[in-house]
Amino acid sequence: MTASNRRILLAERPGAAGVTAELFRLDSAARPEPGPGEALVRNIYLSLDPAMRGWISAVANYSEPVPIDGVMRAFAVGQVAASRHPTLKVGDYLYGRFGWQEWALTDGATVERVIEERDLPLTSALHLLGINGCTAWLGLANIGRPKAGETVVVSTAAGAVGSVVGQIAKLKGCRTVGITGGPEKVRTCLTEFRYDAAIDYRGEDVGAALDKAAPQGIDVYFDNVGGPISDAVMERINVGARIVLCGTMGIPSSPPPQGPRYNRALLVKRALMQGFIIFDHADQLAQARTEIAAWARAGLITTQLDIVQGLEATVPHLLRLLAGKNSGKAIVQVAPEAR
Amino acid sequence: MTASNRRILLAERPGAAGVTAELFRLDSAARPEPGPGEALVRNIYLSLDPAMRGWISAVANYSEPVPIDGVMRAFAVGQVAASRHPTLKVGDYLYGRFGWQEWALTDGATVERVIEERDLPLTSALHLLGINGCTAWLGLANIGRPKAGETVVVSTAAGAVGSVVGQIAKLKGCRTVGITGGPEKVRTCLTEFRYDAAIDYRGEDVGAALDKAAPQGIDVYFDNVGGPISDAVMERINVGARIVLCGTMGIPSSPPPQGPRYNRALLVKRALMQGFIIFDHADQLAQARTEIAAWARAGLITTQLDIVQGLEATVPHLLRLLAGKNSGKAIVQVAPEAR
Repeated sequence: MTASNRRILLAERPGAAGVTAELFRLDSAARPEPGPGEALVRNIYLSLDPAMRGWISAVANYSEPVPIDGVMRAFAVGQVAASRHPTLKVGDYLYGRFGWQEWALTDGATVERVIEERDLPLTSALHLLGINGCTAWLGLANIGRPKAGETVVVSTAAGAVGSVVGQIAKLKGCRTVGITGGPEKVRTCLTEFRYDAAIDYRGEDVGAALDKAAPQGIDVYFDNVGGPISDAVMERINVGARIVLCGTMGIPSSPPPQGPRYNRALLVKRALMQGFIIFDHADQLAQARTEIAAWARAGLITTQLDIVQGLEATVPHLLRLLAGKNSGKAIVQVAPEAR
Repeated sequence: MTASNRRILLAERPGAAGVTAELFRLDSAARPEPGPGEALVRNIYLSLDPAMRGWISAVANYSEPVPIDGVMRAFAVGQVAASRHPTLKVGDYLYGRFGWQEWALTDGATVERVIEERDLPLTSALHLLGINGCTAWLGLANIGRPKAGETVVVSTAAGAVGSVVGQIAKLKGCRTVGITGGPEKVRTCLTEFRYDAAIDYRGEDVGAALDKAAPQGIDVYFDNVGGPISDAVMERINVGARIVLCGTMGIPSSPPPQGPRYNRALLVKRALMQGFIIFDHADQLAQARTEIAAWARAGLITTQLDIVQGLEATVPHLLRLLAGKNSGKAIVQVAPEAR
């Protein structure tokens, strides 16, 4: 009797049509058994992230492309089901790069950490205390550096990263302006994520809306999109502005599309534009998690989750995320929590 | 008998034709006499700088536009000829914003400093120890932060700022690559300014030339131009690159022209792009001057000066500078040194 392990493999790389369902293939393999030094993790929650667009691309990027016929790279929360690893114990909840599959073997290298915050929802390990929350925290701490009274603009403001950026900036005493798609997300920004103002880029002239929402100009821009939305922000930055480049969902990866050159705006405003990637800041993650966990326990940070059930729901959920059609942190649950 | 003061006034602002001789008017006024608290400065050397294009423009900028019919704003080196000022003494050599004129009245507000380095050529107060040298030093110290072994690329590499950038980066142990216009300036870059490689953007494919000149990629880019030259650099930056935005001579001021969007390159390479302006860093100028003066005394920094004689030579000299046709720091001498 061989138990199975269902997995989603990358079948081919995106072409002109971008990310489509056909790039992935559902597959069933034998459930692995841990060898010496290994542990078997039962995945519970799989993470879906915009960065996956880059991970499956062959274009030079900040991480190696997912290999063709390899299990799709993904962060996940799981529980150790069997262990021959010296420190990982059966029952431990883990956060790591366990991929889009039901079961994952690990020698520890793919484990980000053992989840200690058992008083917080298990999903928070994936989101608030995981790649999304830490990305928000790191980008603000290292590049955005918001000061009380400043105006902070966030694109994909209702998204998994943006919603945390907006709330942290608000906790720092800033005026927060979210840019998001559709009246529903605008409402979520205002009611759930406490933005002072929210702009629907699909229904409004972003520039005119920013003039109203950020009458003192823009000091920090946390950018997840690039493209025309960012152009409207760039035209309204203040002297000394900091532009955090976190994502480029609004523009093709390669080759770079055309747009206005903002060298002169950056020069005249003595502004800074900087890209960052969470993986470079491992030394700050514990601090980020400690601070975010404290806010979460105090009820100062709200999350919105968009959880679907079952491995086969994964790819459609990713496509909705990349199309900006989902709302909240996109997660797939592939096993019960059974805590 | 009233002595005269010949001056160059701004007659009108640049239109579609850009900066032309017709924008300026030579004028003669009565030589002023110092009132209480004032000193009369006899200008000796007038500075010509690319930034003047911005100073005469009405577009929002980092300094107030020069008023129409006002004396053209300029840095200059002069000597106190008469004084009713409490600290400025007759015979003092000054560096300050004395404008394009033979004589300037000052209450001290336009004085940048009294020149102390009498062992160095007087022109060095205008160039190496003035706006150009300090701009080079500040941009590298605060943004470029070159480390030994890194590759530093400089646009307008033979210019008043660029030539100092290249030499400082070389002193820091970097591989230096200059981009300049024409074979003559390429030679100057290699022989005078000790660049490891120099590229003629008029005669070479800049991208291909960079591949050869910077085989390890580019860690620091000190940019005075923007536009297609910078595009070739952006495509070759390393992880953690720093792009110093110092000038935008290669692109129109406003509105921003179209070009490739480099958000993705900045993100994937975790690179930083930052504009800066010397006027924000007054607290660092003394340190910059001390260090540059020490290098100059030790013969470690070479300058190339392009001095023309007489106030009427000023505007044609500026036009040559803005067209990239001059070589070295552009200066107009309007009085003998008589030290």
